[in-house]
Amino acid sequence: MSLVVVGSVAYDGVRTPHGRRERMLGGACTYVALAASYFTEVGIVAVVGQDFDPEDLRFLEERGIDLTGLERAAGRTFFWSGVYSEDMNDRTTLRTELNVFADFQPKLPPDYRARPYLFLGNIQPELQREVQAQMQAPRLVGGDTMNYWIENRRPELLEALGRWSALLINDSEARLLSGERNLRRAAAVIRNMGPRILVIKRGEHGALLFSDDGPFLAPAYPLEYVRDPTGAGDSFAGGFFGYLAERGLDPSRKPIEARELRRAVIYGSVMGSFCCEQFGVERFRTLTRAEIDARFQEFKALTEF
Amino acid sequence: MSLVVVGSVAYDGVRTPHGRRERMLGGACTYVALAASYFTEVGIVAVVGQDFDPEDLRFLEERGIDLTGLERAAGRTFFWSGVYSEDMNDRTTLRTELNVFADFQPKLPPDYRARPYLFLGNIQPELQREVQAQMQAPRLVGGDTMNYWIENRRPELLEALGRWSALLINDSEARLLSGERNLRRAAAVIRNMGPRILVIKRGEHGALLFSDDGPFLAPAYPLEYVRDPTGAGDSFAGGFFGYLAERGLDPSRKPIEARELRRAVIYGSVMGSFCCEQFGVERFRTLTRAEIDARFQEFKALTEF
Repeated sequence: MSLVVVGSVAYDGVRTPHGRRERMLGGACTYVALAASYFTEVGIVAVVGQDFDPEDLRFLEERGIDLTGLERAAGRTFFWSGVYSEDMNDRTTLRTELNVFADFQPKLPPDYRARPYLFLGNIQPELQREVQAQMQAPRLVGGDTMNYWIENRRPELLEALGRWSALLINDSEARLLSGERNLRRAAAVIRNMGPRILVIKRGEHGALLFSDDGPFLAPAYPLEYVRDPTGAGDSFAGGFFGYLAERGLDPSRKPIEARELRRAVIYGSVMGSFCCEQFGVERFRTLTRAEIDARFQEFKALTEF
Repeated sequence: MSLVVVGSVAYDGVRTPHGRRERMLGGACTYVALAASYFTEVGIVAVVGQDFDPEDLRFLEERGIDLTGLERAAGRTFFWSGVYSEDMNDRTTLRTELNVFADFQPKLPPDYRARPYLFLGNIQPELQREVQAQMQAPRLVGGDTMNYWIENRRPELLEALGRWSALLINDSEARLLSGERNLRRAAAVIRNMGPRILVIKRGEHGALLFSDDGPFLAPAYPLEYVRDPTGAGDSFAGGFFGYLAERGLDPSRKPIEARELRRAVIYGSVMGSFCCEQFGVERFRTLTRAEIDARFQEFKALTEF
């Protein structure tokens, strides 16, 4: 069932030990939407500049993504560039040019408002809250955030995420948000802030799910070649949330079963792993649902004992 | 069935964010033997000095460990001390006093030689080879090593591990030994060196098993409080190898089933997790087999989807 994704659509410049790209399609909203598009209808809310390439619009449309909420503003598209360390566990930002994203005021198209699923990508917490307020009565709201908001907009962030059902963040963000080093204790603190479904992403080390049914440990898929980890966490979020939307779950009627949440985490890992196989969004140009389901089965084979 | 463990018995001084101990029982052989003692009969081959505390002998004996091969030499027992970083992922060695361990020449008591299982803890590769040569026809030989031998005794190490069925090392050692950063490719290189069963330990991130049946991903148990990680990797090895010995597997007659190897890895993770709950070997003073089996079941609940 239909999912609304809010966040950045951007161009990225990336250098990894396997190559470089000067300017490629990127942004959290882009990755979340592309990954989720394998599971459900997706409509995005984002802003791009006048330099946005019609080819990139066409690609998103071909994946069935509803672009009604994609605003085109005067100026240039958000640009970020960075370089990854040899082991790809660290990256250094070279340039961040917010451009049209600096004044982004997400406006939901009228026909988005009744849609049942909402994923709030990493933007200012105040904007996340405003977007949620524009929705009629979403069944499930999930979101992401980052160190910058945790450190500089803490009250606004707590206000925003207090209204979410699900939070997906990485381990360093979970530690910063909770003030706890140990992830199990961090999870207990964060779940008391509101989101009863918490996914802590750990990159090549997999993900942890904390819900009312206790913890679930998901490994990362052991890729032989990681070309570019950019967008892997957002692709994870797209797979996770896209799967829940596909299943049409409605926690106001019936609590989400642990089994469904666990499967969603595995689909998240699957989408994150595919994302890393090529630069940027390249892998999503050829990826099929059959490949996704085959890798899901492979996760079973890799973890059963 | 009976397992012989060779390696260091030592005293350790340890400081972690949760406390410090000036001098506590330690050493790889100690941890491997204690963890394995929950699964099988264990006999050790090691050396201690005249300062070795009779209380510590008594503790090992109470765990049913055969000390026939524990030599007492003139001088002091191997002493190591170190301090862990705030997140306990790094440790800095403060002192290493080899003492009687410097001249350790492992001699197998005659009645050890026919025992079916042999685990070679991290000692000089030449000594590992000599010990193996003293055994009659062990069913299964496994071993550990460290960066120092990989860098400074590479030919001797390759000679030694070429005769092992199983190698258990950590991720940085696997990378150094193989020259490959990616663990899947590293595993392929290492398995061609001889050991068809390879376990790559990743501390708080779990373990990877590579065998003829492909990879298996085991998460680490999400402990709420890690007091002291000293010995966790050796306890893992003891659980892993102890379980295989308990099962009486004989790969010369019948290849070890993937299911058994996977269960052995989980028992390894279980033993590593218990080890971290207290300083040094403290947890093994109270731990029961029932607690071990309960945590094994908990691993199932934590990973099934």
